Amino acid sequence: MEQMMGKQSVRFQNPVKIASHACVGGKKEGEGPLGKRLDLVVEDPMFGQDNWEESESSFLKTAGEIALRKGKRKKQEVRMAFCGDLLGQLIASSFGVEKLGIPFYGVYGACSSIGAALSAGAMAVAGGFANLVLCAASSHFASAEKEFRFPLGYGSQRPFSATWTVTGAGAFLLNGEKGKVAVTGITTGKIKDFGVQDPFNMGACMAPAAADTIYQNLKDFGRKPEEYDRIITGDLGVIGQKILIKLLKENGIDAVKNHMDCGIEIFDGPEQDTHAGGSGCACSALVLSSLILPKLESGEWKRVLFVPTGALLSQVSANEGRTIPAIAHGVVLETV
Amino acid sequence: MEQMMGKQSVRFQNPVKIASHACVGGKKEGEGPLGKRLDLVVEDPMFGQDNWEESESSFLKTAGEIALRKGKRKKQEVRMAFCGDLLGQLIASSFGVEKLGIPFYGVYGACSSIGAALSAGAMAVAGGFANLVLCAASSHFASAEKEFRFPLGYGSQRPFSATWTVTGAGAFLLNGEKGKVAVTGITTGKIKDFGVQDPFNMGACMAPAAADTIYQNLKDFGRKPEEYDRIITGDLGVIGQKILIKLLKENGIDAVKNHMDCGIEIFDGPEQDTHAGGSGCACSALVLSSLILPKLESGEWKRVLFVPTGALLSQVSANEGRTIPAIAHGVVLETV
Repeated sequence: MEQMMGKQSVRFQNPVKIASHACVGGKKEGEGPLGKRLDLVVEDPMFGQDNWEESESSFLKTAGEIALRKGKRKKQEVRMAFCGDLLGQLIASSFGVEKLGIPFYGVYGACSSIGAALSAGAMAVAGGFANLVLCAASSHFASAEKEFRFPLGYGSQRPFSATWTVTGAGAFLLNGEKGKVAVTGITTGKIKDFGVQDPFNMGACMAPAAADTIYQNLKDFGRKPEEYDRIITGDLGVIGQKILIKLLKENGIDAVKNHMDCGIEIFDGPEQDTHAGGSGCACSALVLSSLILPKLESGEWKRVLFVPTGALLSQVSANEGRTIPAIAHGVVLETV
Repeated sequence: MEQMMGKQSVRFQNPVKIASHACVGGKKEGEGPLGKRLDLVVEDPMFGQDNWEESESSFLKTAGEIALRKGKRKKQEVRMAFCGDLLGQLIASSFGVEKLGIPFYGVYGACSSIGAALSAGAMAVAGGFANLVLCAASSHFASAEKEFRFPLGYGSQRPFSATWTVTGAGAFLLNGEKGKVAVTGITTGKIKDFGVQDPFNMGACMAPAAADTIYQNLKDFGRKPEEYDRIITGDLGVIGQKILIKLLKENGIDAVKNHMDCGIEIFDGPEQDTHAGGSGCACSALVLSSLILPKLESGEWKRVLFVPTGALLSQVSANEGRTIPAIAHGVVLETV
């Protein structure tokens, strides 16, 4: 059976099962609509560490440890970890994984990193190159603001198009045997650049990439939107969602009914003052572990297209006045 | 046939062939010992762009284009690109790949990035998930100094333990059919941290990671060092090489005779004032394309263990006084 589908997709001959998963969030995430579903809420934004970056590494490490515990596996059994985060040179991931001692490939796709991690991890398992893989991603409100915007101490005002970076991490153990939900396919994203330059409007910047990946996934697999119980983007927020729906409609796809966005789900926007929604690598990862997988595990949903979205900017590229390209990776999840 | 070998390695049942490859270097690289073997030397450090980062993206894009031309393939045929660089949020790769329009996963392992890219790319091909994959990595002396050390305008003095970041990019097209050299196995690196904090002594920082990966590769495959024509590390330089040889000897491995280091090969240290050697993602990538693969293609060598090395630091982690963890990924290359 051919595993390459259409132009950009893979259908796994050997479905890759999610053996266990975990998510750890910060105080604000704990107070949000999904708060009760998180495995752990850490009220201290420093996680007992000396700085925000080490705190973020602790979130990642802890999510990995909880996933291992829930799956009754030892870290020594994990053959490869694919992890990513938003910080320069992926320091949150490397310092986090270092403590776990698992062989490690860093992956980067900005806030879509968990999509890249799950895609690469699923290929490693499906190809028979690893029998147990850890995929994880983290972000931290304070470390991300420091990296991309202004020091928190400035007390800068945030426009309503801005999103709020989720503090936390999600971790997923992939294997070939155990698990109620499988990664049955992937669609590798292309970089799309519509010329947006505003780092406070990531939704607008990422919507074209999400639309492109969703369009390509449907085409490659020959599916209609309604063949997915939900098509779930990463962190477009309320502004990006409108653009996505419009772009898909222009291409003959009506995704109004079954579209969902992790950035909209994770916070109660008006109540929690998060403006356009949540964002960051942890946004998609937390919603996947706390909401999407449980609904697939219970059988309420049978098939979901999970499309984490990422804006590929850096401090340097933003200061140089360059546009913000974006990417979105598609991961097909099905009840097995 | 079992593909998982020992604890950290993979032996590919379907060897993954290198269909074509290319390397592009800057002026200094062109003047070095491998200068005549580069596909293209770009004398202008700006590559006609507005800044160093865009210049680096142009190196990456150009290396990819030359590899495609040499392999007589079109960019539209490439199903996935795995690329990495040293800059925060991988902007050199994303802006470079954006122009190629190839579905893209960002990978990061600092100067070991080409090792991570080749490993992930080889798994994608060997598993039947892609019939043509582009793996590439880039670095640029000026963009790296700006990112990690001091602005060039300061004219800071460089200690003799410092390495010189290679300007350029290497690109490799992987497939299942054509090619004289194959990726026949990989060993995924673990993060090793020996407490080095000096960003001007990367060799010392990375040597333990290289030793660990080499040790594990030999153990996983049940090979002796002499079963490889060469064991070739990424960018340890002259100081790191001494530490590596010593660490391996302590573990009963004599690698003096067949060890080689890309950082030592790429520049004429005393003549070119590059101190401990070359470094950067492009260092391993350029030496792989200009020296290692030609020797395998000609049959002079039959089997090589290629071990790009990376120091996982960032501006932020260095300013916070944290140690520099390192990683090294093993890639087994054989004449087929």
